[in-house]
Amino acid sequence: MSNSVTEKQAKRPNYFDYRREIDRLTGIEVLDTFEKFSQRDDVFCRALWDEGVANKKVKDFYQGYYMPKAKARKADGFSQRDYALRNAAWHVCNLIREQKDGRKEGFHDHFTSHDDGAPEPYAFQSDHQATEDIRKVAAFAGADLIGICAYDERWMYDGIYDTRGKSKPLDIPGDLPNVIVTGESMDKDLTATVPSALAGSATGMGYTNDCVTLLTMAQYIRNLGYRAYATMNDSALAVPLAVQAGLGEGGRHSLLITPEFGARLRLGKIFTDMPLVHDKPKKFGVKEFCDICNRCAKGCPPKAISFEGPSDKIFNRSNLKGVVKWSTDAEKCFKFWVNQNTDCSICIRVCPYNRDYSVWYNRLWQKIAGGRFRKFALWLDDRLSQRKRMKSAEWWPKKNI
Amino acid sequence: MSNSVTEKQAKRPNYFDYRREIDRLTGIEVLDTFEKFSQRDDVFCRALWDEGVANKKVKDFYQGYYMPKAKARKADGFSQRDYALRNAAWHVCNLIREQKDGRKEGFHDHFTSHDDGAPEPYAFQSDHQATEDIRKVAAFAGADLIGICAYDERWMYDGIYDTRGKSKPLDIPGDLPNVIVTGESMDKDLTATVPSALAGSATGMGYTNDCVTLLTMAQYIRNLGYRAYATMNDSALAVPLAVQAGLGEGGRHSLLITPEFGARLRLGKIFTDMPLVHDKPKKFGVKEFCDICNRCAKGCPPKAISFEGPSDKIFNRSNLKGVVKWSTDAEKCFKFWVNQNTDCSICIRVCPYNRDYSVWYNRLWQKIAGGRFRKFALWLDDRLSQRKRMKSAEWWPKKNI
Repeated sequence: MSNSVTEKQAKRPNYFDYRREIDRLTGIEVLDTFEKFSQRDDVFCRALWDEGVANKKVKDFYQGYYMPKAKARKADGFSQRDYALRNAAWHVCNLIREQKDGRKEGFHDHFTSHDDGAPEPYAFQSDHQATEDIRKVAAFAGADLIGICAYDERWMYDGIYDTRGKSKPLDIPGDLPNVIVTGESMDKDLTATVPSALAGSATGMGYTNDCVTLLTMAQYIRNLGYRAYATMNDSALAVPLAVQAGLGEGGRHSLLITPEFGARLRLGKIFTDMPLVHDKPKKFGVKEFCDICNRCAKGCPPKAISFEGPSDKIFNRSNLKGVVKWSTDAEKCFKFWVNQNTDCSICIRVCPYNRDYSVWYNRLWQKIAGGRFRKFALWLDDRLSQRKRMKSAEWWPKKNI
Repeated sequence: MSNSVTEKQAKRPNYFDYRREIDRLTGIEVLDTFEKFSQRDDVFCRALWDEGVANKKVKDFYQGYYMPKAKARKADGFSQRDYALRNAAWHVCNLIREQKDGRKEGFHDHFTSHDDGAPEPYAFQSDHQATEDIRKVAAFAGADLIGICAYDERWMYDGIYDTRGKSKPLDIPGDLPNVIVTGESMDKDLTATVPSALAGSATGMGYTNDCVTLLTMAQYIRNLGYRAYATMNDSALAVPLAVQAGLGEGGRHSLLITPEFGARLRLGKIFTDMPLVHDKPKKFGVKEFCDICNRCAKGCPPKAISFEGPSDKIFNRSNLKGVVKWSTDAEKCFKFWVNQNTDCSICIRVCPYNRDYSVWYNRLWQKIAGGRFRKFALWLDDRLSQRKRMKSAEWWPKKNI
């Protein structure tokens, strides 16, 4: 296991005790075969260098995120109007994240710290006060969920990808003790239209809002006189950190499932030395429910999601090695995206946890799903939930303001 | 009046008929002495060139928007933590808007159109459908209010300000027939803490969110194949356009008062040739209520708001000439901002229309205020409303997520 932690981290007092305890609480089983993940093996990076993934169609797929190369077609949800919104939703995210010298902020590299902060750290009365404070700021900056956990070397990328075609070392310092994990919910109605280019608008706007939230929070922390590195999909694996930070549990589709939004959210992470109290991992029966449910596996057109139980089985180099969990076949998944010419989130739509929890009976359903009557909850979901695709043509005329 | 419109606009069929009709509906009285407003005379621009406004203190005031020059002090609402949040709230807005070659997007210049749109305009079934469509997208992109009016040359700036110290021509084409006006509400609790640096966080985050909304909407319109220029405080006077677009009425404090948020919002404008149906101006008794109310005038520490009725009286070169309305003394207002080392919005806080209209009795109050029992509404507000300053130290511990 020596390759899974830096010397620095291993020297920290009680790091291995911490690992044992946090793994017990999360239920994440890390084997001796564990290897840190190299971002180069992420399927989106492989699309740039691996001939097994990269091809002309992939290039067209990415170019389609800019008009006029969107290749709209007549099918519902794939018209010019749908692509117009999807691409516009990404627009501000694309503007904010710097992309030069092989960097792609928020996806490969952490966000640049643009403005200087305060020279002296603000003295909070207690770590508890600091924690309440950052929760307040997170909500103000647009986060829907927030959790805090300890820095854990295992989930940091073992090298990040330079868009010019090589791996480079991760440049987030290893001495930042805390990770703030944020969640931004995605529009429920839009997600209901998947598969559609229109549904990709929820993804794009999710990233845009995430950029705003993370950059604002990180600048706030620096303004207090602490260090803060804002990251989105870059730098570290989000799901295990989110689980450790008490945001939810990992599901069969390998996405985080939260009590508030199911899997309908995006994750951000801030690495910091602001003094903070860690949250406890939260179990609410997802593991046991996913064990008996296979909606996502059945609903996935390219069959990228496994019907089997959690294991350390891997499909290809894009999987994390040596962790017992549900894994998906990212190659099949991404190929489907490229073929339909937009990102897919059918597994999010069809997941029984995808509900509006502002309504009491959905909260009640979640309680049932989390207990020993989970089969009844699954049966109920089968009978009562309309989790079918909503036509994009129905989304557009719905009134808002 | 020849100096108030371009030749192009005057040549448009029925432009003068339109003006007569819209002024009748809005109640805005434009006199023969009317002159278009040159942005150079805006007090924020004068702070850059006019010795009567610019000085060392003004420079310090602006530098304070970046740590560590914030000059925090011990008073409630002005601590390092308060400035840390205020400055962080502005951070993404500062990143998004390009500032080079004398440009200051969103404040002096319109936002750059970064990505190409579609080459051919999308064919809507009707202008009505296009209008419903952009309303949907506005809500999706984060707008709280939207209204549409015709382009009106009178409210366009007669030259905009180049931060290098000179006036330059406005570069928004005069042949775009429609203006979309958006409103973004500001955090009610934060506004309640004014005067405070903390309250400035609502301003900063308002601008940040506004940038995201306007850039997303404008890119969407371009992606449909139409032209769109996204503007914030730049390019044109927002209040008369918002009134013409049916968002609300102008109040004694010279801000827009809306039925949904009172004056607690920020305005954006998009100039476009997307085919759209215009909204009708909306009167709900603000003019008559402000006639008998002077809360903002009494509440303004530097007495920048008039106790008198609407007139074409001007205080200094920062006022618009030749329009009968409530005007404020921008020099006194801005001087107060500089002296207290943050922006002020006491007039927004103390305005009786500053209420939470999700609550039925506040909607009822607004109905009364808009009718002949308005004096009773004012009396009620006096007796029942706690519109006092909330301590910043009380805002921080309030739970959100």
